[in-house]
Amino acid sequence: MLMQDFLDGARSVCGADFVVEGPAIEPRYLEPARYAAGCAAALVRPATSAQIAELVKLCALHGLTLVPQGAHTGLVQAATPQDASRQVLLATERLREVFDFDPLDRTLRVSAGFKLSEVNERLAEHGLWFPIDLSADPSIGGMLAHNTGGTRMLRYGDVRANTLALEAVLAEPAGQVLKLGRGLQKDNAGLALQHLLIGSSGSLAVITEATLKLHPLPRQQAAALVAPASLDAVMPLYRRVMAGELAGLVSAFEGLSRPALQAALHARGDEGRLFDGQLPEYALLVELSSELPAASLDLNALLQQWLEAEFESGAVVDAVLGADESCWSLRHGISEGLREQGKVIGFDLSLPRRHFMRFREQAAAWLAREFPAARVADFGHLGDGGMHWNLVWPKSEVALSNDQMARLRSGVYAICVELGGSFSAEHGVGPSLQASYREHTASAVLELSGRIEAVFNPQVLLGLTRFGPA
Amino acid sequence: MLMQDFLDGARSVCGADFVVEGPAIEPRYLEPARYAAGCAAALVRPATSAQIAELVKLCALHGLTLVPQGAHTGLVQAATPQDASRQVLLATERLREVFDFDPLDRTLRVSAGFKLSEVNERLAEHGLWFPIDLSADPSIGGMLAHNTGGTRMLRYGDVRANTLALEAVLAEPAGQVLKLGRGLQKDNAGLALQHLLIGSSGSLAVITEATLKLHPLPRQQAAALVAPASLDAVMPLYRRVMAGELAGLVSAFEGLSRPALQAALHARGDEGRLFDGQLPEYALLVELSSELPAASLDLNALLQQWLEAEFESGAVVDAVLGADESCWSLRHGISEGLREQGKVIGFDLSLPRRHFMRFREQAAAWLAREFPAARVADFGHLGDGGMHWNLVWPKSEVALSNDQMARLRSGVYAICVELGGSFSAEHGVGPSLQASYREHTASAVLELSGRIEAVFNPQVLLGLTRFGPA
Repeated sequence: MLMQDFLDGARSVCGADFVVEGPAIEPRYLEPARYAAGCAAALVRPATSAQIAELVKLCALHGLTLVPQGAHTGLVQAATPQDASRQVLLATERLREVFDFDPLDRTLRVSAGFKLSEVNERLAEHGLWFPIDLSADPSIGGMLAHNTGGTRMLRYGDVRANTLALEAVLAEPAGQVLKLGRGLQKDNAGLALQHLLIGSSGSLAVITEATLKLHPLPRQQAAALVAPASLDAVMPLYRRVMAGELAGLVSAFEGLSRPALQAALHARGDEGRLFDGQLPEYALLVELSSELPAASLDLNALLQQWLEAEFESGAVVDAVLGADESCWSLRHGISEGLREQGKVIGFDLSLPRRHFMRFREQAAAWLAREFPAARVADFGHLGDGGMHWNLVWPKSEVALSNDQMARLRSGVYAICVELGGSFSAEHGVGPSLQASYREHTASAVLELSGRIEAVFNPQVLLGLTRFGPA
Repeated sequence: MLMQDFLDGARSVCGADFVVEGPAIEPRYLEPARYAAGCAAALVRPATSAQIAELVKLCALHGLTLVPQGAHTGLVQAATPQDASRQVLLATERLREVFDFDPLDRTLRVSAGFKLSEVNERLAEHGLWFPIDLSADPSIGGMLAHNTGGTRMLRYGDVRANTLALEAVLAEPAGQVLKLGRGLQKDNAGLALQHLLIGSSGSLAVITEATLKLHPLPRQQAAALVAPASLDAVMPLYRRVMAGELAGLVSAFEGLSRPALQAALHARGDEGRLFDGQLPEYALLVELSSELPAASLDLNALLQQWLEAEFESGAVVDAVLGADESCWSLRHGISEGLREQGKVIGFDLSLPRRHFMRFREQAAAWLAREFPAARVADFGHLGDGGMHWNLVWPKSEVALSNDQMARLRSGVYAICVELGGSFSAEHGVGPSLQASYREHTASAVLELSGRIEAVFNPQVLLGLTRFGPA
């Protein structure tokens, strides 16, 4: 049997302990956060790029597909195999050979298997961090494959902006190990192939190592939960703070719809206290941070001054200041709060800010017409245009069929794209967005993407996302 | 004649006034800053992407090569055609249709023909800028083709980090106009093809438009010209300022070797006054900037405190503070000062900071042995690892032959690359770096780059840089 040959080969590459046949794979490798469980012919857990190179060659030989998986925290099914006969799950969690910190360049060369939390724990003692701030704890490899953004992106940029070099294993030529970039801040000595791999959902190459740009940890932060006077007041507030004197200090500018806020408050048994129970239609979480100590620059005072001025001008009606911890625990408690109410249908959108509120209006109107039982409880990174336009499908309702769910998703994506938005802001493309990708990508771009894909992955040996036309 | 057919076709596309035959082309289109003049069969000056699309088709039909040119300020010969029979110069200067400023998103959609200075003049009234800071005044298209860096990169990032979308015309299919990206800050809904075009030296596609990320103009700046106690004191100074309390404020950290400083001082008749005539071996220009007004944060005071502390600790022996204008005019006067002494041989290198000083030592030693008449007068963007390791070949010496020049360049590049550096930090690759590119790029990367190039430019219809193996 082909599969037996592959398993024998894989065992001699990785060691017998690190190759598991399909039925014996632990559930965590096959059960993604938001979707049904997948299945695989085998799980392989290599420890080095050289082992991955050998595994790629074996898959090429036996016509199998390798599906790379980091910490399995992704939300687009890109790392969950779906075929028990031909797909092999490649867990990168044991790729931990390299952790090479350069204090002078403020860079870290690190193996793909490290988790974000581990990286930042180790860097903290040097006063530095890799400033991608997420609720989940993905692996570095997974973050690169999806070009993760997070809540502090408006200050620090995305993963791409903070990646200086990559190591990757190619499918064509099978098992070719490639070093892309030299880890320098300034380097334009060839095509930027590393940037093509970043955000390619594990379907162009297996990313095994990266050189990351680090930033000093802030010495102080100040945050406030703000109740704007109205929905119309939100964008002018944003505009004033981002173009004004505080521009360089804003590290987060999040939006929370009333239902999202209510869900989070309910989950922590805290209803009725915030804003004296007068929850605004859309609240804001504004955070400032700085490397300067409070003696040089008092962020709390600056934030308070700004809020007072906006209060005077009538744009803000209430604010809870200085409560960083409680602000953020509320923000991060939304998802849990929503899950208590029913099935959460998540959207990871982004929009031009001039259409941000229009989208909320149009999409809610469409939903009320087409799926009246669904409740909107959106929140998101207004600061960078990101919007988690999340819905709750109440427990009391009959579950949506796959077709209904597809129609719901496709209706929302169409409204978003029509307004110049993106159907995938920071989660990347994966099988769950495959149809939307083809629907909302111009045919010329699909064609070109397909030709690029054919350079990297001509035998469809890698990953589950396809960037070419159907 | 083929050429006559092309000219007729081009005239009907662009209008007769905007097509010029080879001998009648104005010198500025053919005379690059640092190299001998080129030549072309014709110059075409289209005004729209649609016209460029037609010109690409005409070139495909007649087997001609199109060489895109912005403001012709590049330093790697990428925009200077060299063949009077088969190369057509495509000036993008008339691409000025689009100037679409979005104050809420702080983005600018702009045609490739606008110059950087024009963009920033128009944005100033809105308190914003495109923060790429250069001595030259390139076009937006040229900046994208070479992923320009500049002096403030350590604060704002390079062109890539500040580009959200592109429009480009493809060579394959000939004349296909492509929109890549939606101009959103957060968007991961496909392959990042736009990032492959950025820095591709005009050889993968003709960039016709970009959506740029804008930043607030600083409300204050403070600068100092600093004399470190020794060469060994330089990197620790850099490390302390970049990991310390001022980290978020540093907008430039430039290095100036004594000969570079002397040349600039001589050019402005100012010798003997700076640092009481005691010029350090390597001076530093440190600049802070902030969106906050001085009433909230006094940058001059902060810079002075820092310098005093470093003076106390013995790392700094002298500093001229608060003289922004004079600091920068000195920095920008170096090139002129060097030209007075002889022929300037420019290098645009970048190095890991731990090898920055070692490179200066090793390269100077090699030069003293191999080309003793050459004088080193380096300066550069120490803050981001960039180094303009410039040499002067004195007027009194016999000019270097092409072979000697090639040997000199190749010797310097070899030392730089051996130390983990790049032979092209911010100028990109072009014909002048073609041989170095092939010499210092791993064969697997050359192969892959060649396969990518074959997707975009299979008939070698575009540009003068080749990214594949020889």
